[in-house]
Amino acid sequence: MSPPVLLDYASVLIFALTGALVASRAQLDIVGFAFIGALTAVGGGTLRDVMLDRHPIFWMGDPTYILIAVSAAVLIFFTAHLVESRYRWLLWLDSFALAVAVPAGVSAAIMMAQPMPIVVLMGMVTGCLGGLMRDVVIGEVPLVLRKGKLYVSAAFAGALTGALLERLGFEPLIILSACGAVTWALRAGSLAFGWKLPIYKAHPPKE
Amino acid sequence: MSPPVLLDYASVLIFALTGALVASRAQLDIVGFAFIGALTAVGGGTLRDVMLDRHPIFWMGDPTYILIAVSAAVLIFFTAHLVESRYRWLLWLDSFALAVAVPAGVSAAIMMAQPMPIVVLMGMVTGCLGGLMRDVVIGEVPLVLRKGKLYVSAAFAGALTGALLERLGFEPLIILSACGAVTWALRAGSLAFGWKLPIYKAHPPKE
Amino acid sequence: MSPPVLLDYASVLIFALTGALVASRAQLDIVGFAFIGALTAVGGGTLRDVMLDRHPIFWMGDPTYILIAVSAAVLIFFTAHLVESRYRWLLWLDSFALAVAVPAGVSAAIMMAQPMPIVVLMGMVTGCLGGLMRDVVIGEVPLVLRKGKLYVSAAFAGALTGALLERLGFEPLIILSACGAVTWALRAGSLAFGWKLPIYKAHPPKE
Repeated sequence: MSPPVLLDYASVLIFALTGALVASRAQLDIVGFAFIGALTAVGGGTLRDVMLDRHPIFWMGDPTYILIAVSAAVLIFFTAHLVESRYRWLLWLDSFALAVAVPAGVSAAIMMAQPMPIVVLMGMVTGCLGGLMRDVVIGEVPLVLRKGKLYVSAAFAGALTGALLERLGFEPLIILSACGAVTWALRAGSLAFGWKLPIYKAHPPKE
Repeated sequence: MSPPVLLDYASVLIFALTGALVASRAQLDIVGFAFIGALTAVGGGTLRDVMLDRHPIFWMGDPTYILIAVSAAVLIFFTAHLVESRYRWLLWLDSFALAVAVPAGVSAAIMMAQPMPIVVLMGMVTGCLGGLMRDVVIGEVPLVLRKGKLYVSAAFAGALTGALLERLGFEPLIILSACGAVTWALRAGSLAFGWKLPIYKAHPPKE
Repeated sequence: MSPPVLLDYASVLIFALTGALVASRAQLDIVGFAFIGALTAVGGGTLRDVMLDRHPIFWMGDPTYILIAVSAAVLIFFTAHLVESRYRWLLWLDSFALAVAVPAGVSAAIMMAQPMPIVVLMGMVTGCLGGLMRDVVIGEVPLVLRKGKLYVSAAFAGALTGALLERLGFEPLIILSACGAVTWALRAGSLAFGWKLPIYKAHPPKE
């Protein structure tokens, strides 16, 4: 099995866990868990594939993806009550999902021989938009947009690292590992140590 | 006219009525009614066609669809004030729309010879996502996600019924009727008698 | 450079400014500005291209678009505090963006020899949906749906004007200018003088 496929599987699994955790906070039933889990898991990659005109869309050619997403959601349905701080689990799982989905997007774009800016953008789309859909549909403030945290920035830095290493001729395994590591390090540093970029502060008060 | 096309027409008509009812609750003008009506009416099927790479998208090849959606929305603009309980109308119309859109999605996927899991998912996408977009855009809690009601579950059971009957070699008319009947029976039973699946209840309080 | 490409550039630029203004109201960091700016800038046109099966999507074939959007967002990040009434700027910039994006959508559909209803709809999609995504993602009431203002209606009237003039055999420059002028005049008249269509008023109170 090739590394990109493994990345896609891992990203689907972890994002489905986060989707199901959000569903647990919204008190949905088991099918609702599976629905939000699957939406989160395949949302970003679906947009990536639609924009790249890459058919069949990754999860359509292989039912394993949906099976993984649904199983992960069902697992959370029966076990989430054992977890003390579901919101912390959500944040940290989401950081791993991001760190796997960004290289998955980068790798898909590289395999289609896309130019560098598109490679970076596809990494960001795959990493950020599944979680964004999860939060918009459930009606929570998107994690992607929480004030004073690195999220899109982490995805951007990771995707850029991957694209640069590819341009320099590195091996896929190195490209994808570095891309994921940079993404995760920045996101995790932001969660653990409060790393952030300056946020916009209006001088006149917000109207 | 083939049954799938009739299903698409019916689903567009009924979903447009629900979209316009939601627009009436948000007090939009007549063009706003048409906009939300059309978005609800063709949203799910558009996602289905884009994901299946099925071009032209169903409503692009035949202007009748948009004409139906806009006419339905205009009708509601001028008559909704005659209705006493718009929210009840919305719920019940939406149940019929779901019961027509799920078989429409199933039938489109079967005609493209998709494998069974994709047939089920396309039924769910076509049935659930137009209404989801309607509610997210207007800013209401999506009907799809209301606590303690069958919605995605009804779509899933109906789509699965259709996919199984197709696998067993039944005629299209039987497949689509059974698919719609199961979907509607579960959704209507949920609305009328409170049928539901157990919802997730956290033991520690929701944080 | 052809007029349609110029229109696309202008629409990306102005919509990115509005996206960044919305980001300033949500106090995001500089990457958040770029993210919302780019989403707003290319969102409507991306949906248009995906629905028309027009690949590569306009911004994928030419990195200038994303560069313009990101530069515009960065500019706003450093200058928005100089502006006294950011909400008024947002409204007026958005009106210009709408008036450029509607003809951009009309022109893309005409170049693909689409029938008249699709030309009108693609103008509306390109004009309205980027701003709609911006507002839904940020969690504001969409400008598109504000009560008692012309927005979708202005886009509809402009797109219809363009489609009719095309049918009558006019030159592209005239078609696109008239389309943009009608769109802008109606939107601006609505902002400045309160032009509006009657909104739906329920006789029984809203439940």
